[in-house]
Amino acid sequence: MNQERYKRGYEQLTKVNGEGAERLVAVMGEIESDFATYLVEFAYGDIYGRPGLDLKSRQIAAVASLTTLGYASPQLKIHVQGALNVGCTRTEIIEVIMQTAIYAGFPAATNGLRTAREVFKEHDQSK
Amino acid sequence: MNQERYKRGYEQLTKVNGEGAERLVAVMGEIESDFATYLVEFAYGDIYGRPGLDLKSRQIAAVASLTTLGYASPQLKIHVQGALNVGCTRTEIIEVIMQTAIYAGFPAATNGLRTAREVFKEHDQSK
Amino acid sequence: MNQERYKRGYEQLTKVNGEGAERLVAVMGEIESDFATYLVEFAYGDIYGRPGLDLKSRQIAAVASLTTLGYASPQLKIHVQGALNVGCTRTEIIEVIMQTAIYAGFPAATNGLRTAREVFKEHDQSK
Amino acid sequence: MNQERYKRGYEQLTKVNGEGAERLVAVMGEIESDFATYLVEFAYGDIYGRPGLDLKSRQIAAVASLTTLGYASPQLKIHVQGALNVGCTRTEIIEVIMQTAIYAGFPAATNGLRTAREVFKEHDQSK
Amino acid sequence: MNQERYKRGYEQLTKVNGEGAERLVAVMGEIESDFATYLVEFAYGDIYGRPGLDLKSRQIAAVASLTTLGYASPQLKIHVQGALNVGCTRTEIIEVIMQTAIYAGFPAATNGLRTAREVFKEHDQSK
Amino acid sequence: MNQERYKRGYEQLTKVNGEGAERLVAVMGEIESDFATYLVEFAYGDIYGRPGLDLKSRQIAAVASLTTLGYASPQLKIHVQGALNVGCTRTEIIEVIMQTAIYAGFPAATNGLRTAREVFKEHDQSK
Repeated sequence: MNQERYKRGYEQLTKVNGEGAERLVAVMGEIESDFATYLVEFAYGDIYGRPGLDLKSRQIAAVASLTTLGYASPQLKIHVQGALNVGCTRTEIIEVIMQTAIYAGFPAATNGLRTAREVFKEHDQSK
Repeated sequence: MNQERYKRGYEQLTKVNGEGAERLVAVMGEIESDFATYLVEFAYGDIYGRPGLDLKSRQIAAVASLTTLGYASPQLKIHVQGALNVGCTRTEIIEVIMQTAIYAGFPAATNGLRTAREVFKEHDQSK
Repeated sequence: MNQERYKRGYEQLTKVNGEGAERLVAVMGEIESDFATYLVEFAYGDIYGRPGLDLKSRQIAAVASLTTLGYASPQLKIHVQGALNVGCTRTEIIEVIMQTAIYAGFPAATNGLRTAREVFKEHDQSK
Repeated sequence: MNQERYKRGYEQLTKVNGEGAERLVAVMGEIESDFATYLVEFAYGDIYGRPGLDLKSRQIAAVASLTTLGYASPQLKIHVQGALNVGCTRTEIIEVIMQTAIYAGFPAATNGLRTAREVFKEHDQSK
Repeated sequence: MNQERYKRGYEQLTKVNGEGAERLVAVMGEIESDFATYLVEFAYGDIYGRPGLDLKSRQIAAVASLTTLGYASPQLKIHVQGALNVGCTRTEIIEVIMQTAIYAGFPAATNGLRTAREVFKEHDQSK
Repeated sequence: MNQERYKRGYEQLTKVNGEGAERLVAVMGEIESDFATYLVEFAYGDIYGRPGLDLKSRQIAAVASLTTLGYASPQLKIHVQGALNVGCTRTEIIEVIMQTAIYAGFPAATNGLRTAREVFKEHDQSK
């Protein structure tokens, strides 16, 4: 493990996922601890930590990309939550997913909207 | 054709593609004129014309989604140009594409970066 | 909303989904009402309403495309039902999905066959 | 090689591709002769030779599936030609591809339309 | 059905899936018996039975390909089990899936790792 | 840049790509130097450098995954070359790609075979 990159990654992950960061690393760590480390170091430490794109735009890109994949509901859920955490409105998230229908079709967008609604509902219930 | 939606779509298309709008519709129209009409009416008139997400964020979402698909270089080229037109910096576009490596892998991101560089080069040469 | 297109789309949707049309729009509407409207207007009003391809062939195309995507089981379910509604036999639907193995591989086709069997079973039980 | 299956497959391939069958097997055979044999035996001998779905519907399914993949232009070209050979009209082929935009997005459909137009053009020129 | 190819395929399937072979054919057969036959004849009889690549390497290729698809968890599960049966270590399987993150992104790899862990857990419990 | 990881990654890259390593980093660097660095550090330094899977198996996994993607010809070309460099035979590479037809369909496998043949041809000519 690379201490500095991990620390920088974990800070970014906490900015995006708040209290969820610890749980995310724990869940990933149970599956494969080295892979959890790479996610923190590479995805969050190397990429998210770069200047040149604000965190809100990064979450918009993440939501668009994950919706496009079609099979990535667990990851989309985390990034819809992340988008809310860094200041995206629900409307903005819904707009990004609906727009994805143009590029990836209605099924990918429909599944993405369903995932976003689940996150919003959990959010409302946890209040 | 639906006059009002088409007009609204064409206005959005012009905001995003500037002088390229006319050429885009012409190229698409040669392939299939009704499909060009749907693209203007649905993609730009219905979706892009919606309030709730600014045009810069819409182009970030488009670049992320098209990079993720992997096979959509012609469309990515248009939206990298569109992103520049609505005020995204080259750095922001490159950051979005690099970030996509996390979700869709290095090959999709590498091909996306190559496409973006081509657009930037054409941009520099046309000045 | 565009009254004429929506009406035309809803008529097509009813031809394909019968009594299921109302429920489909209701379910989609709970997720995002504007997106349900676009589905009716664009997918069914603009595209399905076009002359030049009969509804049976359109459902064959839908089943082949959705099987190919691999992740679109909920939508495939609706279109397997739709294919039955417009006169495709069970055999024809199974043949289309099996043929998709050539282009998209055995896993996509296997998952598609499983989805079709679920629809057939529900059909038998509801009688 | 399995004589009977190969013969049955080659007959189907000839029904679909006419004079193109020989060339297709030759081109595939140069790449990998065993793979060309599997294509004839499995895809055409086993699957296309099955009763229960007419050849026109099989080509509609092929065009829809290959358009959805997004990266399969060489194969789409062969099946657009095949669709014409078994009696699909140009309009029907274009309709299938346009409809695919609903499930797989505008880029896949746009690239599919471009491929179909190339085939139609070559067809016109060879007359 | 082609007796010789089926027999050869079933032997390969048994080498890879052991006692699971019978159950796999039974489950597939309930969905569509002809498709189960093609899977045995083509996938296992034609392809897996070929010399030139050992069974361990074939399972590594299968695990990498199925992880990349993203939506093929049921099939990945079978091939993770198959990889163990032909002598791959758990570590080797985990390494293949983690490496796939480079080409297909973290979500596909994460879902693949989760599937592998499920198989390992069932393995431990059945002892 | 992280000196130690980069060095470890570059060593792995050299093992896989031989004289091609320098050119690969140069080409990627022209597109985006930071991205070239991540490729070396993460893909080769972190992942390829791990014990637990030999380099030949890693190249088999790479070839299977890249063939499955369908759109990744430039990257597949590099890894077919890499597979040869670490001791895979041409037959083994062809077998891996043909097997991918089972999971990802004939078009992906056909395009993969074509790419492999190009690499083999260049190899023969450069001798």
